[in-house]
Amino acid sequence: MSILADLMNSLIDRNYLRFSTVELDNRSLEDLIGDLLSARGEVSGMKMAHQVLDRYEGFTPDEKKSFFKLLRSRLDIDPKLVRQALDDYEAHPSKAHYAAFAATAEPKRQELIRRLNQTDGATHRLVKMRADLQKMARQESDLEVIDKDFKHLFESWFNRGFLVLRPISWQSPANILEKIIAYEAVHAINNWDELRRRLAPADRRCFAFFHPAMADEPLIFVEVALTKGIPSSIQSVLESDRSETPPKQADTAVFYSISNCQAGLAGISFGNSLIKQVVTDLSRSLPNLKNFVTLSPLPGFRKWAKSCDREEELLVSEQARALAAEYLLLAKGTGFLPLDPVARFHLGNGALIEAIHSQADLSDNGVAQSGSVMVNYLYDLGRLTANVEKYSSLQEVTASTSVKTLARQAQKRLETQTSRKSIHA
Amino acid sequence: MSILADLMNSLIDRNYLRFSTVELDNRSLEDLIGDLLSARGEVSGMKMAHQVLDRYEGFTPDEKKSFFKLLRSRLDIDPKLVRQALDDYEAHPSKAHYAAFAATAEPKRQELIRRLNQTDGATHRLVKMRADLQKMARQESDLEVIDKDFKHLFESWFNRGFLVLRPISWQSPANILEKIIAYEAVHAINNWDELRRRLAPADRRCFAFFHPAMADEPLIFVEVALTKGIPSSIQSVLESDRSETPPKQADTAVFYSISNCQAGLAGISFGNSLIKQVVTDLSRSLPNLKNFVTLSPLPGFRKWAKSCDREEELLVSEQARALAAEYLLLAKGTGFLPLDPVARFHLGNGALIEAIHSQADLSDNGVAQSGSVMVNYLYDLGRLTANVEKYSSLQEVTASTSVKTLARQAQKRLETQTSRKSIHA
Amino acid sequence: MSILADLMNSLIDRNYLRFSTVELDNRSLEDLIGDLLSARGEVSGMKMAHQVLDRYEGFTPDEKKSFFKLLRSRLDIDPKLVRQALDDYEAHPSKAHYAAFAATAEPKRQELIRRLNQTDGATHRLVKMRADLQKMARQESDLEVIDKDFKHLFESWFNRGFLVLRPISWQSPANILEKIIAYEAVHAINNWDELRRRLAPADRRCFAFFHPAMADEPLIFVEVALTKGIPSSIQSVLESDRSETPPKQADTAVFYSISNCQAGLAGISFGNSLIKQVVTDLSRSLPNLKNFVTLSPLPGFRKWAKSCDREEELLVSEQARALAAEYLLLAKGTGFLPLDPVARFHLGNGALIEAIHSQADLSDNGVAQSGSVMVNYLYDLGRLTANVEKYSSLQEVTASTSVKTLARQAQKRLETQTSRKSIHA
Amino acid sequence: MSILADLMNSLIDRNYLRFSTVELDNRSLEDLIGDLLSARGEVSGMKMAHQVLDRYEGFTPDEKKSFFKLLRSRLDIDPKLVRQALDDYEAHPSKAHYAAFAATAEPKRQELIRRLNQTDGATHRLVKMRADLQKMARQESDLEVIDKDFKHLFESWFNRGFLVLRPISWQSPANILEKIIAYEAVHAINNWDELRRRLAPADRRCFAFFHPAMADEPLIFVEVALTKGIPSSIQSVLESDRSETPPKQADTAVFYSISNCQAGLAGISFGNSLIKQVVTDLSRSLPNLKNFVTLSPLPGFRKWAKSCDREEELLVSEQARALAAEYLLLAKGTGFLPLDPVARFHLGNGALIEAIHSQADLSDNGVAQSGSVMVNYLYDLGRLTANVEKYSSLQEVTASTSVKTLARQAQKRLETQTSRKSIHA
Repeated sequence: MSILADLMNSLIDRNYLRFSTVELDNRSLEDLIGDLLSARGEVSGMKMAHQVLDRYEGFTPDEKKSFFKLLRSRLDIDPKLVRQALDDYEAHPSKAHYAAFAATAEPKRQELIRRLNQTDGATHRLVKMRADLQKMARQESDLEVIDKDFKHLFESWFNRGFLVLRPISWQSPANILEKIIAYEAVHAINNWDELRRRLAPADRRCFAFFHPAMADEPLIFVEVALTKGIPSSIQSVLESDRSETPPKQADTAVFYSISNCQAGLAGISFGNSLIKQVVTDLSRSLPNLKNFVTLSPLPGFRKWAKSCDREEELLVSEQARALAAEYLLLAKGTGFLPLDPVARFHLGNGALIEAIHSQADLSDNGVAQSGSVMVNYLYDLGRLTANVEKYSSLQEVTASTSVKTLARQAQKRLETQTSRKSIHA
Repeated sequence: MSILADLMNSLIDRNYLRFSTVELDNRSLEDLIGDLLSARGEVSGMKMAHQVLDRYEGFTPDEKKSFFKLLRSRLDIDPKLVRQALDDYEAHPSKAHYAAFAATAEPKRQELIRRLNQTDGATHRLVKMRADLQKMARQESDLEVIDKDFKHLFESWFNRGFLVLRPISWQSPANILEKIIAYEAVHAINNWDELRRRLAPADRRCFAFFHPAMADEPLIFVEVALTKGIPSSIQSVLESDRSETPPKQADTAVFYSISNCQAGLAGISFGNSLIKQVVTDLSRSLPNLKNFVTLSPLPGFRKWAKSCDREEELLVSEQARALAAEYLLLAKGTGFLPLDPVARFHLGNGALIEAIHSQADLSDNGVAQSGSVMVNYLYDLGRLTANVEKYSSLQEVTASTSVKTLARQAQKRLETQTSRKSIHA
Repeated sequence: MSILADLMNSLIDRNYLRFSTVELDNRSLEDLIGDLLSARGEVSGMKMAHQVLDRYEGFTPDEKKSFFKLLRSRLDIDPKLVRQALDDYEAHPSKAHYAAFAATAEPKRQELIRRLNQTDGATHRLVKMRADLQKMARQESDLEVIDKDFKHLFESWFNRGFLVLRPISWQSPANILEKIIAYEAVHAINNWDELRRRLAPADRRCFAFFHPAMADEPLIFVEVALTKGIPSSIQSVLESDRSETPPKQADTAVFYSISNCQAGLAGISFGNSLIKQVVTDLSRSLPNLKNFVTLSPLPGFRKWAKSCDREEELLVSEQARALAAEYLLLAKGTGFLPLDPVARFHLGNGALIEAIHSQADLSDNGVAQSGSVMVNYLYDLGRLTANVEKYSSLQEVTASTSVKTLARQAQKRLETQTSRKSIHA
Repeated sequence: MSILADLMNSLIDRNYLRFSTVELDNRSLEDLIGDLLSARGEVSGMKMAHQVLDRYEGFTPDEKKSFFKLLRSRLDIDPKLVRQALDDYEAHPSKAHYAAFAATAEPKRQELIRRLNQTDGATHRLVKMRADLQKMARQESDLEVIDKDFKHLFESWFNRGFLVLRPISWQSPANILEKIIAYEAVHAINNWDELRRRLAPADRRCFAFFHPAMADEPLIFVEVALTKGIPSSIQSVLESDRSETPPKQADTAVFYSISNCQAGLAGISFGNSLIKQVVTDLSRSLPNLKNFVTLSPLPGFRKWAKSCDREEELLVSEQARALAAEYLLLAKGTGFLPLDPVARFHLGNGALIEAIHSQADLSDNGVAQSGSVMVNYLYDLGRLTANVEKYSSLQEVTASTSVKTLARQAQKRLETQTSRKSIHA
C-alpha cells in the first residue's frame, strides 16, 4: 500500500515546486506557442509550457481574449489539408495516411493544451482557463469552438476510471475543508463551526470525487445524514441542537446536498455514478441502512408555478405538494425531459420520486426557488438500471404511488378550477 | 496530506473490487459494443465496458484478431460524412458544425476505448490490449491504424503531468518489487536476494514513474548507485561483497539500469524527464553529489563493428574504446542521428558522452552486444537544454575531449590500415 | 488521518538517523552510566544513552556479561536505604517520604533502562539486550534478577493499549515480509515463493501486532486460511496447487500458524487478545464466516505418549486421535493445567477443543513432536469469557462431545490393556 | 513505509471503536477494581478496564475524590510486607525474593493504572484522570502520593523515544488544528482565519510532539516564523498584512510561541529536545537559515520590578531593556536558578540570552506580565551542550555581550539612585 501513499505524497511535494516561477523570456506569446508546439525535448517543452501558463495568469481580460482568439484563428484546422489527407487515406488506407489525416483533422490547439498539461499542477490551471473561456464565449460565440476542444480533452482526462471517491470528514486536511465551505452550493456553510456540525457528528458523512492530478481540489461532493426514517425537511436535518443518531440505529441515508466544485469542468459527466458508489460503500459498512434517498430542492418550481399562474396553490401545504408532484411528473422541457434540472439529474441516474414535502426548506433561497417544497428521490440499487432504461429511451418518470396520486390531485384541481373559471367567465 | 494517502488507498480497494466478475450476458460482441457506444447512463455503461474487457481477456488469439478487425472495419471514419461536415464547417464555422466535424473525423473506436476506460482497473487492461494489438499488427499491417488510435489516447492519458516519480526501496510493497524483478531489462535480477542487494544498501537508490490509475504497476524505472568517483565497469557496481559507500561521502550518482515496464506503452514518451527529475531530487537530498552519469551499454556496437569488418579492434582494450568512441560519434542512422538507440535516448535528453570503458561488462549479453564496452553519459543540469538544442536541430553529438580524442585515434588507425591495405593490394 | 501517517513516516525517517554513529568518548562504561543517570539535560542524556547502546552492541559475550554484572551489583537496591525510607513513610506518609521510598525501592538500573530508551530506535535494541541477558541468565542465575527489571518495564511499554494489529499481505513492505519468513516458527516458509503462496491468494490472511516504537518489527503474527468446512490436515491447507476459495464462499477461518517474533519479549503477554481481535475483524469484513478454528500441533504429545509407554497407539489413526484427546483433556502439569503448551495458550484464551485429526501433519517435525496429529481449537466469541472463567478458576478444559468421547475410548482401551496385561502377568 | 501508515490508520479506526460503550454491570467499584487486578484473561481484563474508565468519567467531583481516596487507602504499599520481603531478599538475593520484594514495594494502584491502560484510547483518558487528580490534590494533599504514581508511569510511557515530532500545517486534519487553536497558550488564536495566517504562509512553520497511543492529541507544539533578521517585536511577526518572506531568502527561524497541551502531563519532561530537533530539521531543509532564536515573554518581569520598587524604569524603553537584562541575569529563585520560568526553560536547554527588546509585545497580557519587553534566546547547536553544562552545574547564565552590558547599566543606575537616595536621605 505504501507506494500509493508515497505516490500521492509526492504529488503534494510537487505542489510546492509548482509555484517556483520560471523566468519569463521575451519571446512573443505567438512565438512561444510555436516553439512549444515544435519542441522535441520534453524538458524544454515543460519549461515553455510553464511559461505560457504563467503568462496567461498574468493577463488582463483583454489579453486573455486575444490569447483565445489566437487559438481560434491560428491553431484551427486547415480544411484544404484535411481534404487532401482524407482523399489520400480513402485511396490508400495505410497507417501513414491515417496518421496524416488524424494530424490534420485535429486542430493544433488540442496538442497545445496537451503540452501545457505536461507541467506539474497544470491540470487545475487549465480547468480554470476553461472557466475563463466559458465566460468569454457567452459574449463571443466565436470562441465556443475552442471550448469544444477543451471539453474533448477534459472528457478523456477526467474519465470516470481516473477519479477516486474519498470520504471527507472532520479528520480531513483543512486546505480541503476550506474548499468544501467555499464550494457548497445548496445549503450554505457560513463558517468552520457549521462545517464541523456537517462533518464531525457520528451520523454525518461526506464523500467527494478527486482527480489524482488535482489532488487537493474536490470535483464534486455529496453530504449525507444518517437518520431513522426519511426526513421531511432540511431544517430537521441541519438543526444545530438535534440529538445524534447512533449510526448502527440509522435505517436511512439522506443525500441532502450535492455540489459541483469546478466551473471549468461544466459538461464533463462524472457525477452520475457518485451517489451509486456512495450507496454501495455505505451499504457495505452499515448493513442496517435500508433507504437511500435525497432531500432535494426543486429549483425551477416556483418560476414554473408563476408561469402557469398557479402560485396561489403554494399557499396551502397540501396543494403545494400536489402541484410539485405535477411539476415533477408532467412539466417537460427539451426532449420531453422534466423541466427541473435536479429531477433530470436524479432520474437520469435511475432514482425515482419517492415523496414530496411542503414547508421543507424555509431558507430564503428555498422559499424563493422551490416554494419551500423539497423532494426525496429514492436510490434503489436493484432498480437503477431499469429506471435509467425507461427514462432515457421512453422519457418515463418513475414515482411512488403516493406521488402519482398527488400529481393527479393537482390536475383534478386544475381541471375543476379551469372549468369553474370557464363557468364564471 | 491525508486525503491523498486516502485517495490512493481507495485505489487499492478498488483493485479488489475490480476482480469481481460481471455476469456475461448473451449479446453478441458487436451488439454489446454498439450498446456501449450508445449508452447514456454512466452506470450501465460501466457494466458493459467491464463486460467487453472480460470477454476480450477470455478470447483466443484468433478471436482477439476478429475483435480488432471489427474495430478496424466497423468503427473507422466515414470519409463521406467527414467531407460533408468539413464543408459545413468551412461554410459556417459555428460551434455546432465544428462539433459535427470533430465527431465524424474521429473514428468511433476512440470513443469506445475511452468508454472502456471508465471501469476501475481498465487502464492497465487497455495497455495490455495494445500490447496484443502491436504483436498482431506486425503480421497484419491493416491493424496498424488502430494502434495509432490507442497511441493517441495513451499520449493524452499518460501525459507527463499525470505521472508521479516515486522511490522504490526495500521498504516498498512486495507486489511492486516482484515487478521490478520481472521488468529489469538491462542487468537481470535473478531472485529476491539479488533484488535486496540492489535496493537495501545505503548507497543504492531506485526510482520509478507511476500513473495513478495503474498505481501498482511501474511504467519505467532507473537504478542508481552512489559512488566515490565514476565507475568504469558494471562488475564493480554489482559485485556482491563490495563495501558500502556512506551516502554522505559519495560524489557520484550512477544510473546503471533503465527499464521500460509496459510493452503496451511503446512509443509514449515519458521517460525523457525521468533522469532529469531524479538528478534534481538527488541533488537536493545529497548536496555532496557532483557527477550524475549513466553506465550504459552500446547495444548496436558489436553488430556495427562486424558490419564494418572491424571486429578485430575489439580484441585490444584500448582499440575497443577508440572504436566505440567512433561508433558513438560518427556512426549515423536515420535523420543523421546516432545509430545506437541508447545513445539517441541520452543525447536526446541533453546528456553528453563523458567516458568509455572496455572490459566493463563481462556478462554474456554485454560481450555479445557491446563487446564488453560501456559508456558514461553525463547529465549536467546546467547544460541539458543547450545540448538538446544542438542535438535536435543540428544533430550534433556533445562529448568530452578525451572521447573525441579516442574517436580520432580510431579513425587514424582506420586510415592507416586502409592505406596499408591499399599498398599491400 | 494524515497526521498519523505522517507520524509513522517520521518514525521511519528516524530509523535512518539512528544509524548515525555517535562518536565514542573515552569514559569508562561505569562512568558513562553514572553520568547518564545523573544527566539533567535531555539532549546530553540522549547522546550518552546512544553511546551506551553502541558500546554494548560492540561487546564480546564476556564484556556483555560484565555489563550485566555491573547492573546487578552497582545498580541494585540498597536495603538499608529502603528500610530507612520505609520507616519515614510509615511515620509520615507524605508525598516527599513516598517519593523517597519509591526512589530507593526501585533499583537504579530501571531508571538506566528508561534513560537508554530515550534515543530513537532504542526500544528494539533493549529488546535484543534482554534476549542476550536471558541466554546468560540460564547459566548465571545471579542475573535473573535483572531480567525481572527488564520484564517489569517491558510490561509497561508493551502494554496492550500501545499495540496495533495490522494485516500483513503481499502488498506489505519487503522489509517486513522478510521478517515473516525469518520468524515463522510453526510451518517453515523456505523462500519468497512460499511466502507469496501464504499471503497473495484471496483466501489467505495474515495479521500481526506491532509496537509504534518498533514499527518495522512484528511482535507476533497469525496466518489464516479461509476455507469451506474445517480442514483436517495442514497438507490440505498448504498444498501448492489447491484451488482458491472465493472469500465470500468461505464459512471457516483457520488459524494455522502463530509465531512470536521477539525472543526478548518472552513472558510479556500480549498475544492473548490477538486471535480474539482477528476474529472480530474478520467477522465484520466477511459476515459469512461461521467457524473460527485453529489447526494446531500438540508439541508435547509424542513425548508424553512415550513417557506413558503408549507410543504403539500412535500407529493406528483412530487410536492416535483417541490418545491425543486423552492427552489434551487429562494429562496435567503444574497447577493442574494441561501439559501441552499450545493447549494452555488457546484454552487460556477461552477456546475449546473442537476436533482431533490424525495424519494431519506429515512434516518431519509434525511426526516427531505430535505423532502427525493436529487439533482444532474453536474460538466462539460468545463463549470465550465463560470458558476462560472455568479454565482459570477450576482448571476445567472445555471440549466438544466427540473429543470427550475419543478421550473415553482411549481410557477404556488403557483399562482393557492394563487388565489384560495383569491377566497375562 | 506502508505498514506504518496502516498502523496509524488502524489507531484511528480504534478511535471509533473506543466510543462503543461497554454495558455497565452492577458490581461495586471496589469489587470491579479487585476483579480487574486479579483478572487472568486479557480479554475480560480489557472489558473491566473499559468499564472502570467509563464509570469514572460519569462520576461527580465527589465520586472522583472517593475513587482517588480508594486508590490511596486500599491500594497503597503495606510496610509490613515490604519489610518482610526486603529481609528475605537481603538474606537470599534470589530472583523469587526479588520478585516478591518488587511486588510489595510497588503499590497495587500502579498495576491498576497499567491495566486500565490496556484498552484502546485509555492513555488519553488516564492523562485526563491525572489532570483531575492534580486539581484535587491541591486541596487534599493526601492525594499527592497517588499523583507520584501516575507521574512515575507516565514518565515511562511518554519516554522521549516513544514520541514523534510532526509538522503541523494548513494541510493537517481539522481535528488536530482545532486543538492548536484551543491549546495555544502564548499569543491567542481567536479563529480559523487567524490559524490560517499562522500556518498557511510559506514563511510559517509549526511542529508538535505526538504519542502514538494519543495520535490525535498534540502534546506540545512550537510556532515558527522564517524571517530576514531577528525580529524585535511580536507585532511585526503577527501583523496580518505583512509581506511573506520566500523561505529560501530567510536567514532566521523565530520560535515565537511554545505551548504545552495536556495538563495531565505536567512535570513529564519531553519538551526539552523539541526545539533542538526542530532546529536540526529546519537546518537540513533550509540550509540558508543562520539564526535560531525565540521571541519570548518574561512572565515574571513586571511582578519582580514591582517587588523591587523599580516599575518606574519600565516607562523608558531603554531603561526597561536594561532592567529586563538585570532581571534575567541576576534575579534568582530556588537553587540559584533564574526567577523567570521561561528563562529557566530555554537556559536549561542550552540556549543563551541574545537580545532584549522593549515595546515588543503590546498585547494586554504582554504589557501586564512582561512590561511589553520580549527576549530572544539563541539556540546555537554547537554550544548547547556546553551551555547546559555550565547552567546546570554552576547555574551560570550565558548571554551576549550587549545583554550583559544592558544588565550592568541597570545596576549602575540602581547604585546611582540608591546613593542619590541615601544622599537625599
